[in-house]
Amino acid sequence: MKFTIREGKPEDCKDIERMIMELAVYEKMPDQVKISHKELERDGFGPNAYYKFLVAEVPEEQKSKDGYTKVGYALFFYTYSTWKGRVVYMEDLYVMPEYRGKGIGKALMANVAKVGKEKECVRLQLSVLDWNKPSLEFYLAKGAEDLTAKEGWHHIRFHGEALNNLAQEAP
Amino acid sequence: MKFTIREGKPEDCKDIERMIMELAVYEKMPDQVKISHKELERDGFGPNAYYKFLVAEVPEEQKSKDGYTKVGYALFFYTYSTWKGRVVYMEDLYVMPEYRGKGIGKALMANVAKVGKEKECVRLQLSVLDWNKPSLEFYLAKGAEDLTAKEGWHHIRFHGEALNNLAQEAP
Repeated sequence: MKFTIREGKPEDCKDIERMIMELAVYEKMPDQVKISHKELERDGFGPNAYYKFLVAEVPEEQKSKDGYTKVGYALFFYTYSTWKGRVVYMEDLYVMPEYRGKGIGKALMANVAKVGKEKECVRLQLSVLDWNKPSLEFYLAKGAEDLTAKEGWHHIRFHGEALNNLAQEAP
Repeated sequence: MKFTIREGKPEDCKDIERMIMELAVYEKMPDQVKISHKELERDGFGPNAYYKFLVAEVPEEQKSKDGYTKVGYALFFYTYSTWKGRVVYMEDLYVMPEYRGKGIGKALMANVAKVGKEKECVRLQLSVLDWNKPSLEFYLAKGAEDLTAKEGWHHIRFHGEALNNLAQEAP
């Protein structure tokens, strides 16, 4: 199958919104999605962009049954390790079901790694749900380490009232 | 005890390097630290900064037994949730042992939350080691959720050869 990987543009954000929802359905948390293409357009471009993304596109003659040619994406940003330095963090990696098994996911992830290496990142990090064995196996088979299993790192989150209360305590 | 919280400056980076190592010793992984004040100075400032930090400082008359007045720091950056939007991620929160229990850690964290709210972040996230019960209890008591325990999110990392191999696969 022919496909191309390219940098995301503002006009891709409606497709990204659609695929973010498809991924959330797969992750069994579709009610968690509160974002739309408007926030994605606001936050993903310009000198103060909060994220970047790559799009996988197929030619018109291979469009999906619903008529889509943008069939996958990888969304990432840069973070920082105070032990090692620059890190590229892949927040989302998604390929539409009818396009899986054709190397598109691997190509998206490899390009995120390549972009990260160009920025002198020493790690590529991501998160995966523990029941999502196919994804976990996919990453481990490529040499990734599960830091939660190996070292015991847990994700902690403040949001809503807990975040407001915290901010109000600032001296 | 009197202390002030302020934005970090390049001339703070030697103290940050010192405290990064102190924190790594506490986390039982001091041999993992490969960073120095030079990388911190390069990566933390200017329009393309990879991170930001706050410093807690005490007056000269309350300096530490080793002569330090910079006694704590919080290092953070912005990430992105494709479900919710902007996120502030606190990578490190540290207060020197002789200054603990005086509200400095809470003040640092509250200021990270406040800065995040000013940037319209909807979450403050961080990671904690599962054996580090005092820190975990500190965060949970303030309303945080443990997403690894609750939803099963695991941290996955590529580095070294695994990252190089991945980047070389990019089409």
